[in-house]
Amino acid sequence: MVTAFWEELPAVVETIDRLAAARVIILCADGAHFTAEMDKQIFTHMLNTYAGDPARRAEQFRLGLLELHRAFNVLEHVRMPVISAVQGACIGGGIDLICPTDMRFCTDDAVFTIKETELGITADIGTLQRLQYLMPWGLARELAYTSRRMNAAEAVFCGFINQNYKDHTALLAAVRDVARQIAQHSPMAVTGTKTMLNYSRDHGLMDSLNHVATRQAGMLQAEDLREALQAHAEKRQPVFQGLSPHRSAIK
Amino acid sequence: MVTAFWEELPAVVETIDRLAAARVIILCADGAHFTAEMDKQIFTHMLNTYAGDPARRAEQFRLGLLELHRAFNVLEHVRMPVISAVQGACIGGGIDLICPTDMRFCTDDAVFTIKETELGITADIGTLQRLQYLMPWGLARELAYTSRRMNAAEAVFCGFINQNYKDHTALLAAVRDVARQIAQHSPMAVTGTKTMLNYSRDHGLMDSLNHVATRQAGMLQAEDLREALQAHAEKRQPVFQGLSPHRSAIK
Amino acid sequence: MVTAFWEELPAVVETIDRLAAARVIILCADGAHFTAEMDKQIFTHMLNTYAGDPARRAEQFRLGLLELHRAFNVLEHVRMPVISAVQGACIGGGIDLICPTDMRFCTDDAVFTIKETELGITADIGTLQRLQYLMPWGLARELAYTSRRMNAAEAVFCGFINQNYKDHTALLAAVRDVARQIAQHSPMAVTGTKTMLNYSRDHGLMDSLNHVATRQAGMLQAEDLREALQAHAEKRQPVFQGLSPHRSAIK
Amino acid sequence: MVTAFWEELPAVVETIDRLAAARVIILCADGAHFTAEMDKQIFTHMLNTYAGDPARRAEQFRLGLLELHRAFNVLEHVRMPVISAVQGACIGGGIDLICPTDMRFCTDDAVFTIKETELGITADIGTLQRLQYLMPWGLARELAYTSRRMNAAEAVFCGFINQNYKDHTALLAAVRDVARQIAQHSPMAVTGTKTMLNYSRDHGLMDSLNHVATRQAGMLQAEDLREALQAHAEKRQPVFQGLSPHRSAIK
Amino acid sequence: MVTAFWEELPAVVETIDRLAAARVIILCADGAHFTAEMDKQIFTHMLNTYAGDPARRAEQFRLGLLELHRAFNVLEHVRMPVISAVQGACIGGGIDLICPTDMRFCTDDAVFTIKETELGITADIGTLQRLQYLMPWGLARELAYTSRRMNAAEAVFCGFINQNYKDHTALLAAVRDVARQIAQHSPMAVTGTKTMLNYSRDHGLMDSLNHVATRQAGMLQAEDLREALQAHAEKRQPVFQGLSPHRSAIK
Amino acid sequence: MVTAFWEELPAVVETIDRLAAARVIILCADGAHFTAEMDKQIFTHMLNTYAGDPARRAEQFRLGLLELHRAFNVLEHVRMPVISAVQGACIGGGIDLICPTDMRFCTDDAVFTIKETELGITADIGTLQRLQYLMPWGLARELAYTSRRMNAAEAVFCGFINQNYKDHTALLAAVRDVARQIAQHSPMAVTGTKTMLNYSRDHGLMDSLNHVATRQAGMLQAEDLREALQAHAEKRQPVFQGLSPHRSAIK
Repeated sequence: MVTAFWEELPAVVETIDRLAAARVIILCADGAHFTAEMDKQIFTHMLNTYAGDPARRAEQFRLGLLELHRAFNVLEHVRMPVISAVQGACIGGGIDLICPTDMRFCTDDAVFTIKETELGITADIGTLQRLQYLMPWGLARELAYTSRRMNAAEAVFCGFINQNYKDHTALLAAVRDVARQIAQHSPMAVTGTKTMLNYSRDHGLMDSLNHVATRQAGMLQAEDLREALQAHAEKRQPVFQGLSPHRSAIK
Repeated sequence: MVTAFWEELPAVVETIDRLAAARVIILCADGAHFTAEMDKQIFTHMLNTYAGDPARRAEQFRLGLLELHRAFNVLEHVRMPVISAVQGACIGGGIDLICPTDMRFCTDDAVFTIKETELGITADIGTLQRLQYLMPWGLARELAYTSRRMNAAEAVFCGFINQNYKDHTALLAAVRDVARQIAQHSPMAVTGTKTMLNYSRDHGLMDSLNHVATRQAGMLQAEDLREALQAHAEKRQPVFQGLSPHRSAIK
Repeated sequence: MVTAFWEELPAVVETIDRLAAARVIILCADGAHFTAEMDKQIFTHMLNTYAGDPARRAEQFRLGLLELHRAFNVLEHVRMPVISAVQGACIGGGIDLICPTDMRFCTDDAVFTIKETELGITADIGTLQRLQYLMPWGLARELAYTSRRMNAAEAVFCGFINQNYKDHTALLAAVRDVARQIAQHSPMAVTGTKTMLNYSRDHGLMDSLNHVATRQAGMLQAEDLREALQAHAEKRQPVFQGLSPHRSAIK
Repeated sequence: MVTAFWEELPAVVETIDRLAAARVIILCADGAHFTAEMDKQIFTHMLNTYAGDPARRAEQFRLGLLELHRAFNVLEHVRMPVISAVQGACIGGGIDLICPTDMRFCTDDAVFTIKETELGITADIGTLQRLQYLMPWGLARELAYTSRRMNAAEAVFCGFINQNYKDHTALLAAVRDVARQIAQHSPMAVTGTKTMLNYSRDHGLMDSLNHVATRQAGMLQAEDLREALQAHAEKRQPVFQGLSPHRSAIK
Repeated sequence: MVTAFWEELPAVVETIDRLAAARVIILCADGAHFTAEMDKQIFTHMLNTYAGDPARRAEQFRLGLLELHRAFNVLEHVRMPVISAVQGACIGGGIDLICPTDMRFCTDDAVFTIKETELGITADIGTLQRLQYLMPWGLARELAYTSRRMNAAEAVFCGFINQNYKDHTALLAAVRDVARQIAQHSPMAVTGTKTMLNYSRDHGLMDSLNHVATRQAGMLQAEDLREALQAHAEKRQPVFQGLSPHRSAIK
Repeated sequence: MVTAFWEELPAVVETIDRLAAARVIILCADGAHFTAEMDKQIFTHMLNTYAGDPARRAEQFRLGLLELHRAFNVLEHVRMPVISAVQGACIGGGIDLICPTDMRFCTDDAVFTIKETELGITADIGTLQRLQYLMPWGLARELAYTSRRMNAAEAVFCGFINQNYKDHTALLAAVRDVARQIAQHSPMAVTGTKTMLNYSRDHGLMDSLNHVATRQAGMLQAEDLREALQAHAEKRQPVFQGLSPHRSAIK
């Protein structure tokens, strides 16, 4: 997770979203490990760059952290599902990175560590804001307070990881299979589903029901349902149009 | 889930609630399957009935969806617990139906499918607003995006289903036993418990604690505690009065 | 849980917090059982003490319940993690007591019962406000409605308990080991982690991310990170200062 | 505000809404006064009807109050604006009644009194939930704590009343004129405006902006804008279709 | 606002509340001015007392500020209304002090200044959290950004102050008269009114209506209504019992 | 408000913020009027650009509207106060534009119109999400439903406008004077004030108090307070450093 990574990841993902250039995004890595911990470079850069009296330095840190948050929030805001495929170590910033993705799969040798506590700081790029929703609360606190390693079996047992596979090849094959199933469906149905699930996380039930009714009001009259039913009747795979590229309202 | 079902279900449940005619409600079905997917009739009816320009049609769809929501929300608002007993297939609208119930039990051959995505639409009758609170988030998203089938074992493992049983007879026997245990308790204690659990879902901790204190202020001075303690001392089953039928404030 | 307990527990915990006199708190009990149910004395005391017309009595009950809530809320507000170690029975008020702690561990013979329903009342000291966040919702409702006993194996399976151990000795050894790991870390990092996890429970995602950025703005420039990195480089255990005792702003 | 009033008001308003039978609703009264305080009959009826031990009686009161709330909430939920026209006294339940309307106009001799405090009870049909949003907070508290009368001039000065008129005839003429202006506009535009203003009261800014975008997504492509522009170009009054009657999704 | 003030104010107010020793509290001052700005002593004390690395010092500042907040929050939490009577200057901490009171009255020569901005800091004892709810938003921002003085006439015009009087004697007479009117009413009705108004500030409408119904469920069956009606029939002043002193649930 | 305006406004404002290039921003216009209504070009552009079936077109409209929202939201998010100076007509999109600014001042001949309703659409660029917080609710609804013109006197009386001036020259002189007062203060104090006021709009009281304590923890130890006190002692104008330009955390 070098400096360039923090710039390129959101840029690439936003471009895919804007151009509607894919129906699913798979987040994976080469090599023996998914990710080492966050590069110290970023931190050193912030310490060196942010200057002035304590209040002004604090204000700059605040803006800098919000900037780092945005780099990962884009994984939630992008219109298509994002799947993480983790092999080997996933440490510190790696946990921050996979928490906002829609699903997590891993290899049998995967290990997960919330490294920040061991490093003397409070994790501040998103792990502590999302973790308790992805595994039992007592376990989340144990992992966050102790920085102990969690292996693949425990990660699947606790619900953080959807499924584990014997090696990287098997993992990628399985994840691609899930992606393929999603990609066969109407991308309008899928993006609506993601939007509603994101919305329901942060809103009460009646609010969420009102929101889905308001959204579907304009979007239920879909071509895609007709195509699905017709394809079913004709015993063929349905063919759905992609999402529309986002065209600016202004230019 | 034919048209009549959508009218009769909430009508029956609301009547039971108003008359305080039961202490627990069991939602079950005859035949090999719990429910096929939602009847296309409803959708066809909406498409045929809702007319006018796109904005007016959208407004009617919005009101129509809110009406469908109410048919299932009643399962949450009713003062007594509702238990779902699922055998065989539980598909599409069937998931919308069991999510708002208090507990779900099933047979070994049960299968659960969020069918809407496969049908080209975003599920809009309550599944996506409740599912993430009933199973791990990554799994909820996988099921919602792929429309893949989940069997009974996985459904129990992930916490969505409380327990599975070898066949419909065993399922109903077990569910009736749970219902009997609940019915032996004070219905005031049980309805208070349901109300507080519903409330805690949508409110922060301090709000929820304040609410229980405010409610109990008027309801703690209960006959039912005295009866429970006395029955315990006399080594007999306590006998509790039922809930009061709801009598209008007006007439 | 006699009367003195309700006074002494929050007093002791608040003193530890104010003096920064510990890095972790372990909540454990002597004897065969963690706790019998809540002493009837409290309830009798409230019934005898609160007088006047129904409205005035209700107002006093409300204040009394809020006072009991505060006795347990302090376990969440204290700056250091609190770990529950449960052997044998944990009943009624015992569940209210361990829910606000950060983590729960138990012996193989532990049993958990939400006794209030069986006693004819709605649990009102915190269980129903926290339980659904600590185990699957359907199970939480089953336990709350039926007052059935849950054993250690089921409690671990459902995520309510982090881990079970063969007897009290093994339990305490394991819990002390977890506590030791936490105590080795920077207490500033740990208290920040606890504060953020508490905050994320009750706030939406964007709110929680904003809060961590605002907090870290003033607290990221930590000595503790430097010590952690230097200790790592020097291949020694880092040595962190404790939390500061809380000194009043006024006197 | 006799018993029949509580039944008939919501029934009439809901029917107007369902049938889309009007574009604006004016709430006015005959005689020298808008409304005397709430009929004691309702309260006597509740005291006589609700029976059983204190907890069961409290539960029935709770349901009864929620029922009374619904009678007035319908004024907010109805799709068309509701305008109150108040002459003479508007007391107790009368304040509960006009607070949920969209606008309030009155005669010079109008007086407003939150009578409940003087009667020894806390106002519980909606005044205290809405009043602080309709006038300065300090004034709202003064009126609610003291039950003092507020006259028309003060009510206009503080923003509670939009405008005052010399007598009932002038008041009705003015209110009808406002209603006529509203009725000339697109009822889709007006109902969308009401929905958004209601929504913004109870949600944060980003939530409210997201909601209007989601709603307009399906409703912006309106015939009514085209008609408005064309009428403007042709220098004539635009002619808009009414709202659609609400047709059930089910039958 | 010397150091002792910050200790004594909340102590006195909490004692009045606990003992139910008054029906209304008037907050007033001797001398030509209501309050000079906050004593620098507090700030100097904090700067001198809080030690350690920046993170630990920041944590102590955070706790210190929360402690100062509590000193003023008690004015909102106390069961009886609190009325501010302001003569002359009300500056900086003085604004923080009167914002949480229920009503504000002043003399013609009163002036109000949000002094903190001029002092180089962001007001942090409650003004910025409450001000926008007490006067128009644009004005609140102008006053907070510029630190300009607002006189009595403007303060009444904008709704921040309920009413102004020609001098301190007239002010106190008027405020005592308001207090007397409140004290004649049922203190149960008044405290319920305050609780509901406080609640409605921070909750959506449906939540607030639910809360009042839940509260009144236990408190509506009041002796006080009967006394009010009987006194009215007998053409005499009603006589209401005071609030109950708060007796601990524990001891 | 031509197309270029929607691009340039947020770009300019964001640049000023990033570079910390000003302490206050004044939003004003040349000519007889502040702004005519929103250019139809944007709407025509959206109608022409957004293609596909109704659902896909709706999705694009949703994204387009959110994009337009961002153009005005920047006025709230920018670290320095923004002041609107309105002469002549301020219509439709003009209201959307000035609502998110911190303060509004105008000339005596200013008129304000929520034009959208008259145009057959629901205002969707921010007016309906902000208006009720800036003037009495009944008036906000009257203006929004009727599209009637509000003149300067009424706009000041209702609190929407801070102050009116006889002509454009006087207006600009007055606004510059307010800006000058703000610019003399510590920009850290001012930006903190703006942040807290924004935060308090959308959060409950306890949340907002917690937030200010957390922020001030790192920012209270300010150089600026020392400079303010010293300048006061030395009877000179204090000299504060500007805000820091925002430097990326990454590059």
